[in-house]
Amino acid sequence: MLITKFAIPDIIFGNGSVRHLAQCARRVGAKRVLLVSDKGLNDTIWVNKVREILDEDGLKSVYFNNVDSNPRDYQIHEGAEIYRREGCDVLVCLGGGSPMDATKGIGILAGNGGRIRDYEGANRIMRPLPPMILIPSTAGSGSDISQFCIITDVEREVKMSIISRSLVANISIIDPLLLSTKSKSLIIASAIDALAHAVESHVSKLASPFTRMHSQKAIELFVQYIKPAALERDPHALEQLSIASTSAGMAFSNAGLGILHALAHSLGGIYDVLHGLVHPVLLPSVMRYNLSACPEIMGDIGRMIVGPRLCSSKETGLAGIATLENLFNELGVTTRLRELIPDDSRLETICKMAVKDACYVSNPREADWTDLMDICREAW
Amino acid sequence: MLITKFAIPDIIFGNGSVRHLAQCARRVGAKRVLLVSDKGLNDTIWVNKVREILDEDGLKSVYFNNVDSNPRDYQIHEGAEIYRREGCDVLVCLGGGSPMDATKGIGILAGNGGRIRDYEGANRIMRPLPPMILIPSTAGSGSDISQFCIITDVEREVKMSIISRSLVANISIIDPLLLSTKSKSLIIASAIDALAHAVESHVSKLASPFTRMHSQKAIELFVQYIKPAALERDPHALEQLSIASTSAGMAFSNAGLGILHALAHSLGGIYDVLHGLVHPVLLPSVMRYNLSACPEIMGDIGRMIVGPRLCSSKETGLAGIATLENLFNELGVTTRLRELIPDDSRLETICKMAVKDACYVSNPREADWTDLMDICREAW
Repeated sequence: MLITKFAIPDIIFGNGSVRHLAQCARRVGAKRVLLVSDKGLNDTIWVNKVREILDEDGLKSVYFNNVDSNPRDYQIHEGAEIYRREGCDVLVCLGGGSPMDATKGIGILAGNGGRIRDYEGANRIMRPLPPMILIPSTAGSGSDISQFCIITDVEREVKMSIISRSLVANISIIDPLLLSTKSKSLIIASAIDALAHAVESHVSKLASPFTRMHSQKAIELFVQYIKPAALERDPHALEQLSIASTSAGMAFSNAGLGILHALAHSLGGIYDVLHGLVHPVLLPSVMRYNLSACPEIMGDIGRMIVGPRLCSSKETGLAGIATLENLFNELGVTTRLRELIPDDSRLETICKMAVKDACYVSNPREADWTDLMDICREAW
Repeated sequence: MLITKFAIPDIIFGNGSVRHLAQCARRVGAKRVLLVSDKGLNDTIWVNKVREILDEDGLKSVYFNNVDSNPRDYQIHEGAEIYRREGCDVLVCLGGGSPMDATKGIGILAGNGGRIRDYEGANRIMRPLPPMILIPSTAGSGSDISQFCIITDVEREVKMSIISRSLVANISIIDPLLLSTKSKSLIIASAIDALAHAVESHVSKLASPFTRMHSQKAIELFVQYIKPAALERDPHALEQLSIASTSAGMAFSNAGLGILHALAHSLGGIYDVLHGLVHPVLLPSVMRYNLSACPEIMGDIGRMIVGPRLCSSKETGLAGIATLENLFNELGVTTRLRELIPDDSRLETICKMAVKDACYVSNPREADWTDLMDICREAW
């Protein structure tokens, strides 16, 4: 086994845990908080609730919500300017993967200066960020746990992967009650993102026993709880999906991802598609592509999905993939690439860009851009 | 599910990982390190190796090794005085549970002043500690992962439990190669300590899905690898025991322990017995005592030890306990309390002291001191 690293934030988990925010902010030295969220959350009670929690403890907060899904570089620059101008000292985010990644981007610039594209890739951040507290409002992105930050460079049409130990939040407050106001489609898209994190990290070249116990737990919980969580909004099932997302975050943050996420970032950079919608389209084809490189581990994943089988690892792996495809259909999500993007004219560009993504390097099977083209055609 | 917390240090794990020490020390701002170890380690190559690694990177280090097993309060005061006098800024420990706990104690006083007994109990530490990097030389104590620190108050004959988030090290460097120079008896005693952490935290009132996935992994790895690790010193098995100890540390640090550790601390305070020798003596009796309060979870533990059984949870739990008792006998460790302490004259004092230990509160079944007496008599 290679030398491996494992780093996660302090986690506070459970229904109602958001009420501990002010105490956490004090612990990391907050006097004036930049609270980042997105426009979608304006309509919910949660933004007001979080501001109230800070207010009641005498903590001043400045609110910034100019964040799109797939956050843009200029939005990071704007947020960092506000952070500086207002003299903030701690970053708090309430939101899904996009505002959490935006918060990390703002933190990078607050601590290091420059422009966000200066930090693209792995380990390019040299100075510490201000303290960060993340409160995920969806169960899936894993940004609340991970050392990843994905920002769109608008000029180059690239979703940049920025990866650094410095991007692990100080504290992550995960309150499954926040999921209760989310739409069915958002719950499903987020949960499939978590599943994709778990599957890709489980077969990653950098996986370790520490990451695999988490990716396994995440896959098992997803399979068991996605339907009651999404279709019946069962509170226990939503809590279990939150655990799955958290575990998947611990796994991929420390083991890395693979060509599925490389392609998803590339597609998101050019077509601005919602990240969670890409995975049900491409995950089965990517799993089939990787099968020959790691049949035993794909067999383990198959067993997590369909239970023990008296057949070979390869056959069990294929049974797992087929079961996921059926599940995606039952959940009513888009499963063909042709339904997700306008036409196939830019597929070559997308695949050539994907092989440069930082997530690409830990994929268990070598793949050049023509292999990625084959995967996209299979999923077309 | 209650609101739960989960905090661990950054972990660097693997054969040869100790060579990353200087880089880690730089990351936490070291200029002058207090290196803590114990006298037993003087004879090994590892102390010199660690000093060399620091030297080669231009990091000055002061060496302190006046630490006994069951570290004494006056040794903590001495270490803290040296830390101050020498102008150190970072604590590094190479050693087992005793020097690691001593290091934490020195850190408490360096950051907070006063005497070590001022901090006995949970959450009594108000100011931050200097950065700490821990390098465990045994696989078992879990101090490298945990927020626990156990120091003997010599005057009162009490092993004090000090528990605080501040006691989680910044970085834990876990290098299984360090185990290769350890004696068989030390490997066994340490591993059984890890098993006890896993079993007690698995049934703890404060256990969560995050801690249970780690305690389960630890129990499974212990059962599978203790014999090849201890008897054949198989390198793969030693590595797996290190993973078990690390996982058990993540579990008990966040879920707490129970009456077994309360009794072990009490026994260690009065008779100065080696901590790891107490568990094979008392663990089976404590498990039988707790069985009625949590038969389902004890059944799960039974299945981890003996595999699936077609009988009730209670019967499977009992089968697991019996298998552990056989295993302890095969490993040749002391399994009767009468062989561990000189006589039973102070048992009442020991049990009355144990119910005041901070570990006592998370035990799944209520127990007063007379219940603890019954457990000790069963184990006599």
